[in-house]
Amino acid sequence: MSFPLRLHPDRFLPPDPAERAAARAVYEETAGLPIVSPHGHVDPALLAEDLPFPEPTDLLITPDHYVFRMLHSRGVDLNALGIPRADGTRAATDPRAVWRTFCAHWHLFAGTPTRAWLEYVLHELFGVRETPSAETADRLYEHVAERLASPEYRPRALFDRFGIETLATTDAATDALAHHAALADDAWNAGPAGPRVIPTFRPDALVCVSRPDWPALAARLGDLAGVPVEGYASFVAALRRRRADFRALGAVAADHGAATPRTGWLPEAERDALFTRALDGEATEADEAAFTAHMLMAFAEMSTEDGLVMQLHVGSCRNHDVPLFERFGPDKGADIPLATEFTRSLRPLLSEFGSAPAFRMIAFTLDESTYARELAPLAGHYPSLVLGPAWWFHDSVEGMLRYRERTTETAGFYNTAGFNDDTRAFCSIPARHDLARRVDAHYLGRLVARHQLSLAEAREVGCALAYDLPRQAYRLDERATEADAPVLHSDGVAS
Amino acid sequence: MSFPLRLHPDRFLPPDPAERAAARAVYEETAGLPIVSPHGHVDPALLAEDLPFPEPTDLLITPDHYVFRMLHSRGVDLNALGIPRADGTRAATDPRAVWRTFCAHWHLFAGTPTRAWLEYVLHELFGVRETPSAETADRLYEHVAERLASPEYRPRALFDRFGIETLATTDAATDALAHHAALADDAWNAGPAGPRVIPTFRPDALVCVSRPDWPALAARLGDLAGVPVEGYASFVAALRRRRADFRALGAVAADHGAATPRTGWLPEAERDALFTRALDGEATEADEAAFTAHMLMAFAEMSTEDGLVMQLHVGSCRNHDVPLFERFGPDKGADIPLATEFTRSLRPLLSEFGSAPAFRMIAFTLDESTYARELAPLAGHYPSLVLGPAWWFHDSVEGMLRYRERTTETAGFYNTAGFNDDTRAFCSIPARHDLARRVDAHYLGRLVARHQLSLAEAREVGCALAYDLPRQAYRLDERATEADAPVLHSDGVAS
Amino acid sequence: MSFPLRLHPDRFLPPDPAERAAARAVYEETAGLPIVSPHGHVDPALLAEDLPFPEPTDLLITPDHYVFRMLHSRGVDLNALGIPRADGTRAATDPRAVWRTFCAHWHLFAGTPTRAWLEYVLHELFGVRETPSAETADRLYEHVAERLASPEYRPRALFDRFGIETLATTDAATDALAHHAALADDAWNAGPAGPRVIPTFRPDALVCVSRPDWPALAARLGDLAGVPVEGYASFVAALRRRRADFRALGAVAADHGAATPRTGWLPEAERDALFTRALDGEATEADEAAFTAHMLMAFAEMSTEDGLVMQLHVGSCRNHDVPLFERFGPDKGADIPLATEFTRSLRPLLSEFGSAPAFRMIAFTLDESTYARELAPLAGHYPSLVLGPAWWFHDSVEGMLRYRERTTETAGFYNTAGFNDDTRAFCSIPARHDLARRVDAHYLGRLVARHQLSLAEAREVGCALAYDLPRQAYRLDERATEADAPVLHSDGVAS
Repeated sequence: MSFPLRLHPDRFLPPDPAERAAARAVYEETAGLPIVSPHGHVDPALLAEDLPFPEPTDLLITPDHYVFRMLHSRGVDLNALGIPRADGTRAATDPRAVWRTFCAHWHLFAGTPTRAWLEYVLHELFGVRETPSAETADRLYEHVAERLASPEYRPRALFDRFGIETLATTDAATDALAHHAALADDAWNAGPAGPRVIPTFRPDALVCVSRPDWPALAARLGDLAGVPVEGYASFVAALRRRRADFRALGAVAADHGAATPRTGWLPEAERDALFTRALDGEATEADEAAFTAHMLMAFAEMSTEDGLVMQLHVGSCRNHDVPLFERFGPDKGADIPLATEFTRSLRPLLSEFGSAPAFRMIAFTLDESTYARELAPLAGHYPSLVLGPAWWFHDSVEGMLRYRERTTETAGFYNTAGFNDDTRAFCSIPARHDLARRVDAHYLGRLVARHQLSLAEAREVGCALAYDLPRQAYRLDERATEADAPVLHSDGVAS
Repeated sequence: MSFPLRLHPDRFLPPDPAERAAARAVYEETAGLPIVSPHGHVDPALLAEDLPFPEPTDLLITPDHYVFRMLHSRGVDLNALGIPRADGTRAATDPRAVWRTFCAHWHLFAGTPTRAWLEYVLHELFGVRETPSAETADRLYEHVAERLASPEYRPRALFDRFGIETLATTDAATDALAHHAALADDAWNAGPAGPRVIPTFRPDALVCVSRPDWPALAARLGDLAGVPVEGYASFVAALRRRRADFRALGAVAADHGAATPRTGWLPEAERDALFTRALDGEATEADEAAFTAHMLMAFAEMSTEDGLVMQLHVGSCRNHDVPLFERFGPDKGADIPLATEFTRSLRPLLSEFGSAPAFRMIAFTLDESTYARELAPLAGHYPSLVLGPAWWFHDSVEGMLRYRERTTETAGFYNTAGFNDDTRAFCSIPARHDLARRVDAHYLGRLVARHQLSLAEAREVGCALAYDLPRQAYRLDERATEADAPVLHSDGVAS
Repeated sequence: MSFPLRLHPDRFLPPDPAERAAARAVYEETAGLPIVSPHGHVDPALLAEDLPFPEPTDLLITPDHYVFRMLHSRGVDLNALGIPRADGTRAATDPRAVWRTFCAHWHLFAGTPTRAWLEYVLHELFGVRETPSAETADRLYEHVAERLASPEYRPRALFDRFGIETLATTDAATDALAHHAALADDAWNAGPAGPRVIPTFRPDALVCVSRPDWPALAARLGDLAGVPVEGYASFVAALRRRRADFRALGAVAADHGAATPRTGWLPEAERDALFTRALDGEATEADEAAFTAHMLMAFAEMSTEDGLVMQLHVGSCRNHDVPLFERFGPDKGADIPLATEFTRSLRPLLSEFGSAPAFRMIAFTLDESTYARELAPLAGHYPSLVLGPAWWFHDSVEGMLRYRERTTETAGFYNTAGFNDDTRAFCSIPARHDLARRVDAHYLGRLVARHQLSLAEAREVGCALAYDLPRQAYRLDERATEADAPVLHSDGVAS
C-alpha cells in the first residue's frame, strides 16, 4: 500500500488556533533567513571537491547513526545494513536491499526527529510524494538515485539552494586542513558575510593522555605546528600555533568534549610529572581525567587570548556497547548520556575566566535536569557563558520545547546561542534548521497567546534565535567581511 | 451535600478541539481491546478460589496503599483505618466508620490518579452516581456492599467482564505455586490466547543475603527445587529448576527489584567466599549489594537460556519510615524513590547480553530524569532492551505524558512495552488500563494535531501500545495456544 | 519608539478557550483574596518606620538581584549600576543613568518572571503605560519618581493597598528585633487575623561553625539570650530562649538554609568535641557539614516543643563567582543550585519527627528533579511534611506549572503550602502573588477542561492554594486573634 507523503505547512506548530496564528507569524519571519551552521560534522572534502553524492543508501542510511541505531535496536544486524566495520571491511550488501530494509521499518521512526528530518529531505530535496514502505522502496530508490545524478544535486549547488551563509566543520587539532586550505583559495568560498566554510579546532584526542596512540598524536601535533612536543610548555606552544593556523583559515571556535565538565589547574609539579608519564605512554585513566580538567582551564585561557569561542560538549559515555565497539568502532550509536554536574565542576573555570571580556564559552548538555537547575542560572550570571541549543538526543520537538521552557525564565533568550545542526548528514541541514525554527516559533507563539510577549517582540526574538544569536555567540558578526585570510601552504602551515 | 459522580466520555483527552478529535479517534480504536496485564500483584488465590469479595472497606480502602497513604499524610492514624499491623493484629474498627473517614477526605485526592481510578471503579463497576463525602458515605457503602453480594461480582465473573486476556501475578521464587497449579488444572484458565492467569518468577528475597532469614530461605529454595543449596553452584541450579517450574505453569517473565541497577560479575573466588558467609548468616549489606550486582548478571544469563523476560524494577528506598515499618510492616506507603544511574550500572550486563537474540529485558524507573537521558538512548540502541511503562508514582496522567514525551523521540514507540497495571487492587485493573489508553491517545492526538503523524498511523500505534506491544514484550505472542502445559503435583514440582 | 504597556486580563492563563474559561473562573475567585506572605525578606524597618521610598532606581533596580544579574550576564558592569560593594563603598552613579541602562536592556527580560513582575509594578502600582526603552527611560523615571513622593506610596499605605494580611520577615537568630518590638507596640500592626508583620527565626549563621566570625556570633547569641554559650548545652538553651523571644513577637516559623538536606544526630562525645573546636575557632568545613546535619535534628526537636514551623531551604551553592563575591559580597546573583538528595538525607529526621503531631516541616528545593521523585512521595506519606512552593529560579510561569504537574498526582494539593513570595522587593509582592494565582488557575483550568475536576472543586482548591493552605501550613490559622503579645524590652529580651 502507498500513502502520500505530505508536509503540512503548520507542522510542529501548536494546535490551538491562537497559539498557532502567533507561531505561524513568527515562523513566517524566520523561515527565509540564511542558515548559520556554526557547529557540525560535515566533511570539508564534500565542499572542497564538490563531487556528486553516491547512491541513496550511502547518502541517507549508512552514514546516519540515528537511522541505523533504530533499526539495530529492533534487531536488524549492522552487517545487513553494510555499516563499515572497525577493521575497515564492510559486509557485502546490495544498497537496494538495505534501502528496502530501511523502508520496511519506516514505522519505527513514528514520533522521532529522524522521521521529521527524513520526510523533509525526501519531500523538499528529492520531490518524493509517497511514504517509505516495503512496497514503495524500489520506486523511491530509483527516484532519489535519478535526482542525485543531476548537477543540481552536487554539494555546492545544494549549499546555495539551502541558503547556508556559514558552515563550520569540526577538525582534529592534528588535521593538516588540506581541504580547508583548498577552500580558502577558492573564490566560491568567499561569501558576502565572510568565508562560507570554516574549520573548528578540536583537540580532544590530544587530551586523552591514557590512549595508547597519544604519544604518536603528540608527535604529530609537534610536526604540524613546527614545535616538537617535549614537555608541557612545548605542548601548549604547539596547540597555540595550531589554533593560529585554524584561525587563519577562518575558524571562530574550538570544540571540547569530555565525560564531565570538571575543571581545575593542576599544580605545576604534578602537571609536569603527569605529562612525562604521558610522553612515556604510562598515563592512567585518572591522569587523563585530571589532565582534562587542567586542559579545560588552559584552553579557556587560550580563548581569552585568541578569541576562539570555547564550545563544551560534555556528558556522553562513548562506546557503551563494548562488543559492538570492537566490531564496528566509534560513532555507531552506542554513546549514552550520563548525569552531569556543572555547578561545582565549572566553578574554577568560570571564577577565573567567566567575566573576562574576551572569553566566550558555549555549554551543551545531555542531562536536561541541568537546564533549569544549573546552566540557566550560570548563563544568567556569567557574562562569558552562553547556552548551546538542545543537543543530540534532545534536538527534537519536545526536547527543544523543554530547553526553552527550562532556560528562558532564568537566562532569557539572549544568553542562548540559537541553533546548531551538529550533523554529518549534509542533506539534512535545512530540515534541521527548519524544525528548530518551527519549534522556537511554537514556543514564542505560546508566549504570545498567553499574553506574555507581544507578537512584534516575538518576531524579533524569533529572528534573533534563527540568525543573530548564533552569529553573535560564535563571533561571526565580528569577522572582517573583506577577504584577507592568509594562505595556507600545502604542509598545513599558514604563512 | 451530594454532587453527581460523572465520567465524561472525553476525560483525560486534550481540551484543544483538533487534538481532542484525533485523540478520541485513537481511543475509539483501543477502548475495546482485551486487557493484557503482564505485570501485577493480584493474589492468585482470588481467581483460583473465586470466593466473593468482602465488604467495601476491605476491598477498596484497607489494602490500597495509594488510599491510606494519602489519609495518613493528612494525619489519619493507620490504626483508625484498621490497617493490619506487623505483628498480625489489627485495631478493632468498624468498616463503615473507616469508609466514612475515607469519604470525608475525598477532596484530598483531587488531581490524583487514585481519584481517577476510584471514580471509574465506583461509577463503572458499582454504578455509583454520587461523589463520596461525609454525607453520602453510608449510602455509598450500602450500595457497594449490595453489589458485592451478587454472583456477577465474583472474581472470575469480573475477570470476564473486564475483558482480561492474560493476567500475570508476581510470586516469590520460594512459593509452592499451589494456586497456580490449581488454575493449570482448571478449564476456566485455558484462554484462546494461552493460559489466562500465569505466575511470574520473583527471586528478590533470595538475593538479600544479609537478611537474617536468608539461610532459611535458601534452604526452602533447595527443598522446593529438590536441589539442596550447599554452595553457589547448587544455588544457581536450584534457581534454574524453579524457573522451569514457573515456566511449566505458564510464566513468561521474571521480576527483579533492587535499590540500584548496578550489575557485574564477581570474580569466582570472591563470589564463593561471599556465598559461604551468606550460608553462615554473616553476609553484610555490602556483600548483599555486590551479590545483587552479580546475580543480575546471572539472571540475565538464565534468561538467555530459558527465555523468561527479565523485568528490572529499581530505585526504591523501601520502608523509609522506620517506626511505621516496625509497627505496620512493609508495603505501607513509605517506599520513596531514589535517584538512579543506569548508563554505567547496566553497561556490564548490556555489553554481555544486550544483543543476545534470546534475551529480553524490560526496565522500569522511579527517576524520570533517566527517561530521556539514559533509558531511551539505551533502548534505542540495544536490541534486547525494552522500556517498561511509567511506574508507580508516575502511573498518572502527567506521569504517562512525560514518559511518552521523553522516550518517544529517541526510542520510538516500538521499543516500549505498552502498559502494566502493576496493581494488587483487582477491581482497579480496567480503570488503570482505561486511563493509560486515554493518555496514550492524548499524546498521539497531539502528534496528529501537530501534523507529526497521520491519524491512520496514530491509530495503529495506539493499538500497538494497548495490545500488541505488551504481548510482544512479554513474549505472550510466542506462546503455543494449544493447552499442553505440564501438570504440577501438589508438592509444587512439575512432572 | 514607544510601545504601549498593557496587562491583558487573561495573561498567563492557557490559550485554549475551554481551559481559559475554567482558569478565569478560578482566578476570579482568588484574585481578591488577602495576601498571606509567610516567607520573605522585606526589611522590617520599612514598615516600622514607614519612611518614603527613595527614587526609582534605588527602589526597583539596585536592590533586585533578578534585575542586575541579567544585566551583568550581558556584560553590564555592576559598578556601572551602582551596586554596593563588599567594602561598603559604591561607585558614583547617576540614578537616571542606571535607569536608562535598565530600560535600554528591557528586551533581555522577554519571557522571564522579572518582566512579568516589573510590568505589573509599573502598570498597576505606578500607572505607567509605555514599555521601558532607551527612548522612554527618562519619562518613566520622572513618572515613577513623582508617584513615590506622594503619601499613598508610603510603605504602610501600600501594605494596605496590597491587601496584605500577614507578612513574615526573615531575621537572624542574633537580631535584637528592635523593629519588630516597635511594631508590636504599634496599633497599626494589630490586624484582625493577628499581627500583620511578624519575624521568622533564622539561625543559619550560628550553624556555620567554620566561619571565622562564628565564635563572635555565638557570643552575641549568648548575650541576647542571657545565656552565655560555653558548650553545646548552653548553645541550645540560648537558641531555645531566642526562639521564645521570636514567638513572643509573633513568629510562627523558623527558616533553615543548608547546602544539602543531610540530617542525623552526632554521638554526644563527637558533638561536644566538635563544639569545643568551634568555640576555639578551629572547626573545619567537614565539622560544619556534620554539625549542620546534627542541628537540623536539634531544630526539628525544638519545633516539636515550641511549634515553630521548620522551613528547609536547601541546595544553593552560594557565592559561586569568587572574584565577584570578593568585590561585591553575598546575594549578588551568583548563587547557583546544586543537585539535591532528599530521600536518604531526610530519613533520620523524618523517621524521628515526621509523624510527631506538633511538628511541621516545609521543604523547598532548587532541584526540580526531586519534586516527583522524592518530595511528593515524602509529603504524600509523612503527616508533618508539607511542600513549599516552587522556589527562586522556579518561581515562574513554567516553573510553577512544572511544580504542580509533578507534585499533585502523588502529594495532592493539600500537602502543599500555597505560595511564598520570598522577596525583598516589597513593591513586587502583589505582582508575585497575582502571577502565582494565575498559574494555579491555569493548572486547575486544565484539569477542569480535561474533566479531571469539576469547576466547583477547582474553585475551592484555588482558594485553598491562595489563602487557606499558607495559613494552615504556617499555623497562622491557629493564632489567637486577641492581641496579647508580650512586650519586648529595648535590649531585645521579652518580658
